[in-house]
Amino acid sequence: MNTVLRKDADRIIEESIKAVLPDEAVKRALQGFKPSSGKTVLVAAGKAAWQMAAAARQELDKIDAGIVVTKYEHVKGEIPGIECYEAGHPVPDENSFSATKRALEMVEPLGENDTVLFLLSGGGSALFESPLIPGEELQDITKQLLASGADIVEINTIRKRLSSVKGGRFAQAAAPAKVFSIVLSDIIGDPLDMIASGPAVPDTSTCAQAIEISERYSLKLSDKARELLSQETPKELTNVSTQITGSVKELCRAAANAAKELGYEPVILTDMLCCEAREAGSFLGSIALSNKGPGKKTAYIAGGETVVHLKGTGKGGRNQEIALSAANLISGVQNVAVFSVGSDGTDGPTDAAGGYADGDTALDLEKKGISLKAFLDNNDAYNALKAVDGLVITGPTGTNVNDVAVLLIG
Amino acid sequence: MNTVLRKDADRIIEESIKAVLPDEAVKRALQGFKPSSGKTVLVAAGKAAWQMAAAARQELDKIDAGIVVTKYEHVKGEIPGIECYEAGHPVPDENSFSATKRALEMVEPLGENDTVLFLLSGGGSALFESPLIPGEELQDITKQLLASGADIVEINTIRKRLSSVKGGRFAQAAAPAKVFSIVLSDIIGDPLDMIASGPAVPDTSTCAQAIEISERYSLKLSDKARELLSQETPKELTNVSTQITGSVKELCRAAANAAKELGYEPVILTDMLCCEAREAGSFLGSIALSNKGPGKKTAYIAGGETVVHLKGTGKGGRNQEIALSAANLISGVQNVAVFSVGSDGTDGPTDAAGGYADGDTALDLEKKGISLKAFLDNNDAYNALKAVDGLVITGPTGTNVNDVAVLLIG
Repeated sequence: MNTVLRKDADRIIEESIKAVLPDEAVKRALQGFKPSSGKTVLVAAGKAAWQMAAAARQELDKIDAGIVVTKYEHVKGEIPGIECYEAGHPVPDENSFSATKRALEMVEPLGENDTVLFLLSGGGSALFESPLIPGEELQDITKQLLASGADIVEINTIRKRLSSVKGGRFAQAAAPAKVFSIVLSDIIGDPLDMIASGPAVPDTSTCAQAIEISERYSLKLSDKARELLSQETPKELTNVSTQITGSVKELCRAAANAAKELGYEPVILTDMLCCEAREAGSFLGSIALSNKGPGKKTAYIAGGETVVHLKGTGKGGRNQEIALSAANLISGVQNVAVFSVGSDGTDGPTDAAGGYADGDTALDLEKKGISLKAFLDNNDAYNALKAVDGLVITGPTGTNVNDVAVLLIG
Repeated sequence: MNTVLRKDADRIIEESIKAVLPDEAVKRALQGFKPSSGKTVLVAAGKAAWQMAAAARQELDKIDAGIVVTKYEHVKGEIPGIECYEAGHPVPDENSFSATKRALEMVEPLGENDTVLFLLSGGGSALFESPLIPGEELQDITKQLLASGADIVEINTIRKRLSSVKGGRFAQAAAPAKVFSIVLSDIIGDPLDMIASGPAVPDTSTCAQAIEISERYSLKLSDKARELLSQETPKELTNVSTQITGSVKELCRAAANAAKELGYEPVILTDMLCCEAREAGSFLGSIALSNKGPGKKTAYIAGGETVVHLKGTGKGGRNQEIALSAANLISGVQNVAVFSVGSDGTDGPTDAAGGYADGDTALDLEKKGISLKAFLDNNDAYNALKAVDGLVITGPTGTNVNDVAVLLIG
C-alpha cells in the first residue's frame, strides 16, 4: 500500500464527513439566521432531529419552546426547553401523529413577529405526519398505490392532500410567523419537495392531478379522503426561507477543501453521480491512467450515489466496489489512489464505510492468491479489500448525505 | 433537438476525425523526419498502409524504393516508385509472407547512411509476417495456444521468436540503417510492442518465458520451432526512432481544439476510457447535471473504448449507447449535449459512427412513444436515436483509433 496516499485519503474522508455531520451542518446554516423580535420556536423532525436540535440549542441564545420528533432510540438525552418524542419509521405510528399534532399546537398560535426554526432531515415523511383521515385508512391507501405500481411522485401527490403538514401545510399552519427552515438533504439534487414530503415547501402538484391518479388506479377511498383530494395545497409560501445543508454538495466541497489543504488541486466532477458502482470505479481508473504523468497533484471528486446490481453472493457495498474495480485499472501505477465512502459510515451490509485502493492493491491481492476479478464478480469487495487493508472503517457517523468517491493523483 | 449544440457537435466530430486520418497523421509525424544522406526506403504495413504511404510519398521529395503490404482491396491505386501488395488478414497467408520477405530484401542491404521510413498500422501482425517455420506450423501453434487459454501476451511471447520481423527483428534486419517508425496506434495506451507485434520495438519478453509457456501448455512443437524459442529477440535497438500518431490521444486533442475554437473550455478527462458504455453515458450525464448552471461553456472529453455486454437483440453500438444512456439523465436540461463516435465511422454493426443526445432527446422519444429505457435495455440505441435524429453518420473514415465521447455544456 502507498502509505502516503492512504494517509491523505483518511484525512480527506475524516474532514469531509465531519463537515456534513448534523452539528456542523446546522451551525453553518445558522450563520444566516436572524430571529425576529418575538418568540422563537424550534421544531425538528427526521432521523437527525435530535442532533440538529441539540446543535441549534447550543448555538442560539434564546429558544422559547421546541420539539423533536425522531426515530425510536434516537433521542440521546435531554435538551433544555425542548420536548423530545420518538416515533415510528419507516411506517408512521400513533406517536408520529401525536408528536406532530403537538408541533402544530406550538406553531399555530404564533404571530408575525415570531419565528419557527424548522430543522428537517431524512425520514421526516414518516416521523412528521398528522393525517386528516384515520391512520389505518392512510396506510391502506398507500398500500393500494404501491400495489398498483404508482411511482413516488404519484404517491406523494395523493398523500400531501391527506396530511395536515406535508406539501407546505406545516409552514402554512405556522403563518404569519416566519419559518426558517434548515434541511439536511439526503436526496441527490436536493429536491426540497421530496425531502420529508416538503412540510415547508410550496407544492407543485395539483388537485386535478391527485384526482386523475385516484381514478387511474381505481383507488378505494372514503368520502372524507375523496373530498380532501380536492383541497389545494399551498402554491406559494411567503413566510419561509430555506437553507439546504449537509448535502452531498457540501460533502464534495469539504473533500475538495481537505484535498486542497494537502496540496492537491481539487476537481469536483459531479455531485450527482448515478451509475453502476464498478463502472464508476473503472471511469475513475481511466481518468487516473490518462493523468498519472508527473505534474500537479490532483484530486478528482465525484459525489452521489451509485448502484450495485447484485450477481454474486459475497459481502460488500457500492463504495467498496468502486475501489476494487478501480484497483484493477490502476494496478502498478505508483502515484494514484481511488477511494469511496458512504457518509453514514455504513457501506452495504458491512461494518466498513467504503474502500481504498492504490497501485499496489491488485498486486497485493495477487500475492495473497485472491482474484480481484472473481471477488468483484461475486460482489465480495469487502473480503478482497479486507485482505489488503483496503477497507475504510469509520463507524456509524450519525449523518447520511450519500457517498463521495475520490481519485488522488499524488 | 438543440440545433446549436448539434451543429457544434458535428463540427467537433468532423475536425477530430480529420486529425486522425492516416494522411493528416502521417504528415504531422513527418515534421520530425530528417532523412540521412543515403537512400530512403519506405516500408508500410497494416490496414492503413496504402494511405500512409501515399501521404508520405506526397510529403517527401525523395524516396528511393518502397513497399506497401495491406489487406485485400485496400490498395487504392499506384504510388510512384512504391510496390503495393495485398495479403491475408486477420489470418496471414502466403502473400503476407512473400511481401514481407520482399520488404526484408529491400532493407537488409542498407548501410548506416540509409534510412527506412517504416509506416505501421493496425492489422500488421497478420499482414507483416515472415515466419521462420512453415506457415502451417505457425498456424497450428497459434491454435494450440488459443485452445489452451493462453492470453495475448503469452501468444506473442511465443510468436515473436518464430518470426523474422516481429519483436524488433525487422529493425534489427534493417540495421545499420536508421529506422524512422511512424505508428498509427489503434490500441489504447499505445503499447508499441502490441501494435503489429512491434517489428521495430525492443522486445521485453525472454526466451525463458517462452520456454516456460510452451511447457505450461504442453505445446507440440517441431525441433526447429523448439530451437527458435531459445533464440533471443533484440533487447535494444539503437537505430530506431518512433513517432506515435493518429492515436486516441490525438483524437481527444483534436476534439479539444475544435471545442476551444467554438468557445468551449476543453477538459480532457481521459484518453484511456474503459468501462461499460451505458455507464460511461451515465457518468457523463452526472457530470452534466452537476455543472449545467450558467457559467463558462465547457467540453468534457473522454476518449478510449467502452464495451457493451449485450443483453437484448436490438441494433446499436457502444457510442450510440453512451448517447442514449446520457439522454436519460440530461432530460429537460436545455444547455447540455452528450455525443460519442467511433473514429472508424462504424459503431457496432450499424451504418452510424455514433450517437448524439441533448436535453430534448428523452422528451422527443417520449412524444414518439419510444421508451428510452426499454430500447436501451434491448441494446437498440440505433432505432431509438434514429427516430429523433440522434444518429451521427460519417461513413467509413479510413482510420481506426478508438472512440471519443464529449459532453458539451453550452
